[in-house]
Amino acid sequence: MVTLDDLNRMDQSAFVAALGDIFEHAPWVAEATHNGRPFPSLQALHEAMTTAVRGAGDARQMTLISAHPDLAGKAAREGTMTADSEHEQSSAGLDRLSEDEIAAFHRLNNAYREKFGMPFIICVRRHGKASILRNFERRLENSSGVEQEVALTEIFRIAALRLDERIEGGERLPVHGHLSTHVLDTHHGQPASGLVTEFVELVSGEEQLVLKRVVTNRQGRTDEPLIGGRPLPIGRYELRFHIGDYFAGLDVRQSDPPFLDIVPVRFALAEPEGHYHVPLLVTPWSYTTYRGS
Amino acid sequence: MVTLDDLNRMDQSAFVAALGDIFEHAPWVAEATHNGRPFPSLQALHEAMTTAVRGAGDARQMTLISAHPDLAGKAAREGTMTADSEHEQSSAGLDRLSEDEIAAFHRLNNAYREKFGMPFIICVRRHGKASILRNFERRLENSSGVEQEVALTEIFRIAALRLDERIEGGERLPVHGHLSTHVLDTHHGQPASGLVTEFVELVSGEEQLVLKRVVTNRQGRTDEPLIGGRPLPIGRYELRFHIGDYFAGLDVRQSDPPFLDIVPVRFALAEPEGHYHVPLLVTPWSYTTYRGS
Amino acid sequence: MVTLDDLNRMDQSAFVAALGDIFEHAPWVAEATHNGRPFPSLQALHEAMTTAVRGAGDARQMTLISAHPDLAGKAAREGTMTADSEHEQSSAGLDRLSEDEIAAFHRLNNAYREKFGMPFIICVRRHGKASILRNFERRLENSSGVEQEVALTEIFRIAALRLDERIEGGERLPVHGHLSTHVLDTHHGQPASGLVTEFVELVSGEEQLVLKRVVTNRQGRTDEPLIGGRPLPIGRYELRFHIGDYFAGLDVRQSDPPFLDIVPVRFALAEPEGHYHVPLLVTPWSYTTYRGS
Amino acid sequence: MVTLDDLNRMDQSAFVAALGDIFEHAPWVAEATHNGRPFPSLQALHEAMTTAVRGAGDARQMTLISAHPDLAGKAAREGTMTADSEHEQSSAGLDRLSEDEIAAFHRLNNAYREKFGMPFIICVRRHGKASILRNFERRLENSSGVEQEVALTEIFRIAALRLDERIEGGERLPVHGHLSTHVLDTHHGQPASGLVTEFVELVSGEEQLVLKRVVTNRQGRTDEPLIGGRPLPIGRYELRFHIGDYFAGLDVRQSDPPFLDIVPVRFALAEPEGHYHVPLLVTPWSYTTYRGS
Repeated sequence: MVTLDDLNRMDQSAFVAALGDIFEHAPWVAEATHNGRPFPSLQALHEAMTTAVRGAGDARQMTLISAHPDLAGKAAREGTMTADSEHEQSSAGLDRLSEDEIAAFHRLNNAYREKFGMPFIICVRRHGKASILRNFERRLENSSGVEQEVALTEIFRIAALRLDERIEGGERLPVHGHLSTHVLDTHHGQPASGLVTEFVELVSGEEQLVLKRVVTNRQGRTDEPLIGGRPLPIGRYELRFHIGDYFAGLDVRQSDPPFLDIVPVRFALAEPEGHYHVPLLVTPWSYTTYRGS
Repeated sequence: MVTLDDLNRMDQSAFVAALGDIFEHAPWVAEATHNGRPFPSLQALHEAMTTAVRGAGDARQMTLISAHPDLAGKAAREGTMTADSEHEQSSAGLDRLSEDEIAAFHRLNNAYREKFGMPFIICVRRHGKASILRNFERRLENSSGVEQEVALTEIFRIAALRLDERIEGGERLPVHGHLSTHVLDTHHGQPASGLVTEFVELVSGEEQLVLKRVVTNRQGRTDEPLIGGRPLPIGRYELRFHIGDYFAGLDVRQSDPPFLDIVPVRFALAEPEGHYHVPLLVTPWSYTTYRGS
Repeated sequence: MVTLDDLNRMDQSAFVAALGDIFEHAPWVAEATHNGRPFPSLQALHEAMTTAVRGAGDARQMTLISAHPDLAGKAAREGTMTADSEHEQSSAGLDRLSEDEIAAFHRLNNAYREKFGMPFIICVRRHGKASILRNFERRLENSSGVEQEVALTEIFRIAALRLDERIEGGERLPVHGHLSTHVLDTHHGQPASGLVTEFVELVSGEEQLVLKRVVTNRQGRTDEPLIGGRPLPIGRYELRFHIGDYFAGLDVRQSDPPFLDIVPVRFALAEPEGHYHVPLLVTPWSYTTYRGS
Repeated sequence: MVTLDDLNRMDQSAFVAALGDIFEHAPWVAEATHNGRPFPSLQALHEAMTTAVRGAGDARQMTLISAHPDLAGKAAREGTMTADSEHEQSSAGLDRLSEDEIAAFHRLNNAYREKFGMPFIICVRRHGKASILRNFERRLENSSGVEQEVALTEIFRIAALRLDERIEGGERLPVHGHLSTHVLDTHHGQPASGLVTEFVELVSGEEQLVLKRVVTNRQGRTDEPLIGGRPLPIGRYELRFHIGDYFAGLDVRQSDPPFLDIVPVRFALAEPEGHYHVPLLVTPWSYTTYRGS
């Protein structure tokens, strides 16, 4: 990690070496930003870079946009993407699509290029696969003017995440979300500790991905957030609380089979930078869940 | 349907014609019961028949037990079961097993016959498929004496259900369970009407069977119980409440995608003759469910 | 009770004897309605009477309005009200006011008569004392035209309640509300039976009136509704569930003193003809309540 | 405040000057403890002092016990108590008793002295008034041996609280409890901010004491805990959440009067050193509360 202080002391060539790939194939953005040193915060640095892009004129912006690879496209298949793009696309599972999904992306990429004359850009780390496809379909309805603006917004989001990964110092950029849970045993009036819980991404109708298997601690919480330190990918998720085993372990009378065994709580994350808390209040015969904070 | 009054007026041959198949291949039970007329209630009739079996001695009881077909066994495959047995076995899905399940039943039937010298008898209409298999495994651990007693108890349950289907008059036999739901919209403080809900049997890890798709009425209930007028098969079930669409239809602000969309409530039925009520209190951001009454 | 059939067969003098006091000091309404026989329903009879009033012209309507006694006024003090009015005013506690309240009514009666030249009329059985006073204050803001209309509406409500008390036959008039409760013990997953509950009217800041002390039955309900067969007086109420004693009686571990002991649930009734259900889902450490149905 | 480091460097006379009144009229405890320096923690210091008392023999312990003033007794009336005792007794409201309560304490003090030949000692800061009286009654049933032990335990608790107030350094003694609340608006799926809440001590059947009036912050919490940094006095409390005004302020449709207006949540604190969290999940038509953590 480079620090903000380091950056502020760099000459232009070191500065461009450090930040040249924040914008895809566009070291000129870093170059144009070097003058603005010293940056008091990462926020100020990010703003300076977006200002540079905004001021660069239409042609240069379009070149920047066009330098991005298609999602799950030719560059991905041929391994010619930048390391950043490769990493980003794999985060949303775009490197392991089914044949149908590949065909869907192919069709959408072509339709989008045909209509707008540029690649479809989205900050994939803020989305699950279904959300990317839904956005793709929706944005095809936009006008060219709107889409050019949307593309820049997404590029700025990508840049912020890349900055967040590479540079440290001062307050972090507001690019992270937070998802946590908490289980209260309202039969005993205490936190439910030692409760096994799976955290699952409902990728699509059929595809489910167990992201984590956690055990609640003495406070009824998990030691680590379910998701933290990164955007919450927009999508649908499920927590599966093994409350049958939990109450059996405490010798609480249950029916056979227990009325409640694995309690599924299904919910969507819609704000990648949001704070979501999804608690469970539970007895062997009842439960309550809600969006907490 | 024959009425209890009709039965009470029948001579022995008509009586046996009417009730000869209440006990599998054992018209002698009806024969021995004819004397006891008039029966004031179905309960009294059922008790008279079980008393006749209890008094018939060990050998005759064993003959009665042995006259029952295996579950998913040779008689089923060859179509030589009584109509009652055929109907009963199909109710639990034993007529549409996978190859693995057929092999499991085959193995268990053989092990059981080997150990106890009689077929495994269970009142299948009180169980889902997984519950039958679990009982099968468990009962293999019993002693011969216990199993003979359990077999009779199950035969009396089968007889009660057959009586309940054929004879009417007075109070019904206590062989039915009841499962219902109720949805309260606590965002608006009113019953949730027009809410689509699926009722699903979780047959096994993989196999799920949508039993019903219902829409709640103005009281937030379903016009018919989810299960009524028959035993509740022991097993695991899921209600899937489409609350995302419901609140969208009322123009309630939700996130995109909605925090809650299809709310799954997973529970087990453990008492076939029990009354289960599984309500949902719901807003777009929270819900509560419990075993009600 | 007179039946609708009886009424339909009566000559005019008997008819007026039976219904002459449905409208205060206005037997002419019954007289004018006699022609309309036979009435297929109480609803039709009530409509015929209100139509007679509506058609009687402004002067006669004003005479009808003026024939009503003040609330907690001179006629009440001197015992010269009709039996109906006396009964009605006492239902809302207007016969047992504090000196301050008497002064408030006196002031409001005078202000109202001064502004509108007629007595303030309200169907008192649909209100608690605080609601009457609040309505009194609010209606003083109205114009004369609005108030004359409101007065007639209230007179028709009074008439409907008097008819409901005197005449039976066919469907009842929609003048009744319903208030009930239900307690689910979600610690054990069963209805809470034998639970002591007080039902209290919060008459005003200081004044509380224990209306009923009930014990839940095996279904966790009360044998009788908390209020039924009459309008629900608009006002504030409290249910006090003695759940500490209930769980102690079942030997459930609680803290000392118990975390929850007497659980107060405070709510308002706002629709006199509404159906209110106020359930409690409770463990020794948690509870949920809601407007049910 | 004196620090632990200061203490560890003191000669005996300074040490006794600093800690002589930790035990009521018993500077000899501090004296005997001085040798044990340096104390690595407050816990170690407290243990050393209790060890000194334990080792001092029966006569000296009885003298220590007897040096304590009666609760609400002659010393209190005449103003001859130590400053510590005065402060402690007033914390539980013993300096502002009704005549009936004074008579009750008088009767109990006499009965206790008669039976045990010593004053009744209780760490009053861990109790509300009703809890002190209940303990008084209960402990009168004990044997002399048990009571002498209980008296010492209470003296050690008093000493711990006095140490906690006077000395700082390292980890604090475990003498504090914590009470907090949190309001979630499950109508909107967000914390309820700006919600007015009263925190009330239910001192006795009639007497209620509004301890705090707070307004929830943007997280739906209060900026300060309801009680923190001191023991939670055992007793009964009520939170009164003004949810009618809260939802009216957000233009949410409610009935008139609102179904829920001021929501009372009544609960007991039973563990003075416990952590209690009492959240509310609320819509205009429903709420849930529970002992959280």
